[in-house]
Amino acid sequence: MSVPNRRLHLNLFILSTGHHEASWRHPNAQPQSATDFDYYRKLAQTAERGKMDSIFIAAKYRLANTIKHRVIPQLEALTLLSALAAATERIGLTGTASTTYNEPYQLARQFASLDHISGGRAGWNIVTSTGDATAQNFSQESHLEHKDRYDKGREFVEVVKRLWHSWSEDALVMDKQSGIYADVNRITGAEFQGKYLSVKGALNLPRSPQTYPVLVQAGSSEDGKQFAAELAEVIFTAQNTMEQAAAFYADVKQRARQLGRSSSQLKIMPGFVPIVGDTEGEAKQKERELNELAVSEYGVKCLSDILQTNLFDCPLDGPLPYDALPSLDEIRGQKARFELMVDLARRESLSIRELIVRTAGGRGHFTYAGTPSQIADVMERWLLSEAADGFNLMPPLLPEGLDDFVDKVVPELQSRGIYRTEYEGRTLREHLGLTKGAETPGRSAQPICETVL
Amino acid sequence: MSVPNRRLHLNLFILSTGHHEASWRHPNAQPQSATDFDYYRKLAQTAERGKMDSIFIAAKYRLANTIKHRVIPQLEALTLLSALAAATERIGLTGTASTTYNEPYQLARQFASLDHISGGRAGWNIVTSTGDATAQNFSQESHLEHKDRYDKGREFVEVVKRLWHSWSEDALVMDKQSGIYADVNRITGAEFQGKYLSVKGALNLPRSPQTYPVLVQAGSSEDGKQFAAELAEVIFTAQNTMEQAAAFYADVKQRARQLGRSSSQLKIMPGFVPIVGDTEGEAKQKERELNELAVSEYGVKCLSDILQTNLFDCPLDGPLPYDALPSLDEIRGQKARFELMVDLARRESLSIRELIVRTAGGRGHFTYAGTPSQIADVMERWLLSEAADGFNLMPPLLPEGLDDFVDKVVPELQSRGIYRTEYEGRTLREHLGLTKGAETPGRSAQPICETVL
Repeated sequence: MSVPNRRLHLNLFILSTGHHEASWRHPNAQPQSATDFDYYRKLAQTAERGKMDSIFIAAKYRLANTIKHRVIPQLEALTLLSALAAATERIGLTGTASTTYNEPYQLARQFASLDHISGGRAGWNIVTSTGDATAQNFSQESHLEHKDRYDKGREFVEVVKRLWHSWSEDALVMDKQSGIYADVNRITGAEFQGKYLSVKGALNLPRSPQTYPVLVQAGSSEDGKQFAAELAEVIFTAQNTMEQAAAFYADVKQRARQLGRSSSQLKIMPGFVPIVGDTEGEAKQKERELNELAVSEYGVKCLSDILQTNLFDCPLDGPLPYDALPSLDEIRGQKARFELMVDLARRESLSIRELIVRTAGGRGHFTYAGTPSQIADVMERWLLSEAADGFNLMPPLLPEGLDDFVDKVVPELQSRGIYRTEYEGRTLREHLGLTKGAETPGRSAQPICETVL
Repeated sequence: MSVPNRRLHLNLFILSTGHHEASWRHPNAQPQSATDFDYYRKLAQTAERGKMDSIFIAAKYRLANTIKHRVIPQLEALTLLSALAAATERIGLTGTASTTYNEPYQLARQFASLDHISGGRAGWNIVTSTGDATAQNFSQESHLEHKDRYDKGREFVEVVKRLWHSWSEDALVMDKQSGIYADVNRITGAEFQGKYLSVKGALNLPRSPQTYPVLVQAGSSEDGKQFAAELAEVIFTAQNTMEQAAAFYADVKQRARQLGRSSSQLKIMPGFVPIVGDTEGEAKQKERELNELAVSEYGVKCLSDILQTNLFDCPLDGPLPYDALPSLDEIRGQKARFELMVDLARRESLSIRELIVRTAGGRGHFTYAGTPSQIADVMERWLLSEAADGFNLMPPLLPEGLDDFVDKVVPELQSRGIYRTEYEGRTLREHLGLTKGAETPGRSAQPICETVL
């Protein structure tokens, strides 16, 4: 059997009862499972049975103001992923953590520890966070501006990478005879002094199996794309059509090459909401069933937040109030999501109600309902057209949307030779075909400064 | 069989290859295990077989400057405890986290998550941290003064308790029919505005099984004892003799009563380094064997740090340079440990070398080498004399010191009726006989302020 060059990478984005906003109301949903470890254990084990590269747990640093109508609370990413490390063998464990609201020393410790615990399966989705409500949970009045957030984010990533490199591979001597445990000349402090952060010492954990977690990034604004091209190894992105995805793919890979990076060291994985039916009709029926459970008050609230415009007084069956919308410059927070929503509504002439229903399943991510073979066709086409290196899977209803995918779509992908039938490596970087400890351009993997011991 | 009123509580303090500073050099030690999850898994499972109340993982926020001669690095507490939650069923999971170098919102999330994951087995050892070297890993020039640290610590505990109470028990409605997931009137923001910290919003996790982790504290200075009497549910302490321990016990319980607390809601657990032999001679031999492995350069360095006095120029076989020591007021950091060391050297007229050897096994904690029956005698005497409610066990060599204790001492304690033969409860508070969600005096467990939703 000939093996094509390109193979899909799959990441399972776990979100409580599923990515459809109304999933918790579905007859098969168990909304109380959002804080139940056994529920997450089973999901992770199913994804591992499906030979996926990684699971992914997102994180917010505030309670959503839409909690009245939607289950959002879920377990905290780093603690949950650590527990799941003990319940799985091979699958990657990727979690979100913010560069705006964490201390780099502590975050470096936690990800290094997760990488040790899991034998090299950690991944870090780097976010800069959004919103004053979050800032006010962290002893601050207001959130940093978009550009400042990314500048602080750059400093943060630089510091934690220095910390993760602070023990050279041969720093552990462990010579019982002489009583020398570590060679202190092979351990170096971060010695970082920046505008936002300063960290002097070395990490208090020896180098982890991957040296550092796979760096994931999900910003799709101009600042976000540049940040990702500089340092991300995996990019999550929301793209509505294959054409848009291909343009994004070409843009970001080109930026990476211009920065001296190999474009193969950057995997682009758009979000994908698959709805699997044994017939196309059954899949469409499943999609309708979920959409009918959506609470319109919730949808209007979310869309108002994204567009930073109060839509409660607008007729639901009319168009967006395009003239009243803020300009992109005025948007604080998720600029790319704003653009995607306005663009989608304009292109397809959607009413507010239609836009809400259209995005209820995956918050603007690409959604497709069909048979296993149709879904595999779509994924294969995106892969071969260089619109994606793989997908960030967002089943609308969990666990059944995942079970359907693993039982029905995965064998279809495997039989086409575009997806692994067994794990070949042990670490997440190996699953993704990434070089161990790939470096930011211009920075060496060698100890950076003199010992502080 | 008559059951006495008082029963021992046991906590296993896990520290890499053991609490003896030279344990890693022992022929049976595996120093590479310090970052090996399976090693910790087996230790936790052995402690659970021994029906212990909890395991305990400490945390530092800097690399020890003694790394040349001692294995200190171990996995990070919250990630490791979360992984161990998935590998155990009943034992408590207690970890250190600092009130000086964490953000309360994120720490509250992580402990609430651990409590959910483990079904109510989380414990938090509250520390305020020490030293400028730590501060310099957290974008600060120097460490807060002793009193300021405790003041910030009080604010921190107040904030996280508000966050842990932000969801009332009946806030989760989950009514699929009406589409109401949560009753937003039963979720309250922290609305805390202090000198050091301000946190406005509600936690984004529903109330955990224990509402909040068991609060543990280990300060033994005046500030530390007062802090503990105010809010701790468990106190770890270093005491050299039963008489000193009894005086400490009476002092802290009295302080708690004066603050309106029930003294039964505060469990005092001195550190205890047991060395188990089938004969007394074998136990003493084990102790000598470990002490002979100690590196004197390491011991002098540690003692110099504790006394904040350079001892490298002093004759090892002479006394401490008492006149050159700083006064207690001048000590920044661990005041109680300073007092304990000076007091021990004076009382027993120890040379510097003797003091180093005497404290090599447990850094000043009570150490006893004997047969299982002799060790049980000591523990029973401390318990019945109200010198302790239990012990924080610090085996000098792991895993074998733990195996010995569980296989030989635990049955002895059980046959005397002073230790459980089976877990009766599910949560750590149940193991410890603590009321669920005991409150700081003067603070109500009810939602504290108006909803911010």
